[in-house]
Amino acid sequence: MDLSSLPRSFTIALPAWIDDELADAPAVLPTREDRMALVHRLAARNFREGNGGPFAAVVVDTESGDLVSVGVNVVLSTGISAGHAEVTALGLAQARTGSWDLGADGARRELVVNWRPCAQCYGATLWSGVRTLVVAGSGPELEEISGFDEGPVRDDWAEQFEARGIAVVTDVLREEALAVYRDYAAHVAATGATVYNARND
Amino acid sequence: MDLSSLPRSFTIALPAWIDDELADAPAVLPTREDRMALVHRLAARNFREGNGGPFAAVVVDTESGDLVSVGVNVVLSTGISAGHAEVTALGLAQARTGSWDLGADGARRELVVNWRPCAQCYGATLWSGVRTLVVAGSGPELEEISGFDEGPVRDDWAEQFEARGIAVVTDVLREEALAVYRDYAAHVAATGATVYNARND
Repeated sequence: MDLSSLPRSFTIALPAWIDDELADAPAVLPTREDRMALVHRLAARNFREGNGGPFAAVVVDTESGDLVSVGVNVVLSTGISAGHAEVTALGLAQARTGSWDLGADGARRELVVNWRPCAQCYGATLWSGVRTLVVAGSGPELEEISGFDEGPVRDDWAEQFEARGIAVVTDVLREEALAVYRDYAAHVAATGATVYNARND
Repeated sequence: MDLSSLPRSFTIALPAWIDDELADAPAVLPTREDRMALVHRLAARNFREGNGGPFAAVVVDTESGDLVSVGVNVVLSTGISAGHAEVTALGLAQARTGSWDLGADGARRELVVNWRPCAQCYGATLWSGVRTLVVAGSGPELEEISGFDEGPVRDDWAEQFEARGIAVVTDVLREEALAVYRDYAAHVAATGATVYNARND
């Protein structure tokens, strides 16, 4: 085989505006509300910048509140469909800690994200080693408002996390999450921005 | 915030031995068996090289059989838990084609992988734009033989793919897949190799 055209690697990278947005943010986020407020702020900017959907996530040390990584949805800016906010934040946290297991050596880290993860990121969270998943909400409102397909998730999704040692905390700044999705829907209506999604044609 | 320690990107890269393994492989794989045979060959080498589990995947143009990308599980070599064979192959194909939608412009591409995708890669396949998923098998044998947790997947997983325009083809070189998993189990027993997985302590 001529191997010259075969791709060998791809990179998931944060957009440059992240530095600007984080410049005045605290590096320690003591409460769950502090953590989610940063997620909402990044999500609200992300879709306006054209990087991807209105989604963001952070990985935080549960006890200290130290920020380990931040992620946003970069599907449009990277061209990689797996580049959701959760995969981005978890991968960056693992790149920083040097391990595929964010729970290695007794570490207790959590993923904070602005809605229940989609079908892909549900599994990505399961395998990441985080000990807690914190979401703003988990109902059908995200799909109803934003138009995204989140994929099939089992009714016992939270129990399946708990069975693998991952606690689930929900309804943290829930209304603020819905406000971001409403802003996104208005943005799509006004600009014709792409709602990338599964194929159904 | 002091941003100096914040990671900005991570990379999913194929191991160097891929070039060696592909040097005598054909660049066009006309039949489903041809495609799966290459997957099995890469999977069988991957765990012995220490890159990750006994999993590989290829993205192929369904009609012509042109190879678009190859992927192997690189969780151990990259330290990124999302680096399963499917995410790797799909991301590399998207890097090559320049689009998060592998079905853009009427393209009909397929993901060929050596078992039903885990919970994460199930979703990753949904969002990738492939029009067909080809698997060697889909039963509990993979988990029983290899010791991996594949995560919760819904009983109607195949119907959910079909509902989104993704055909599912199963039982292609099934026994050969199980042979690789048995070799992997023997390798783990003999060497104490890491079966990375979800936490349950």
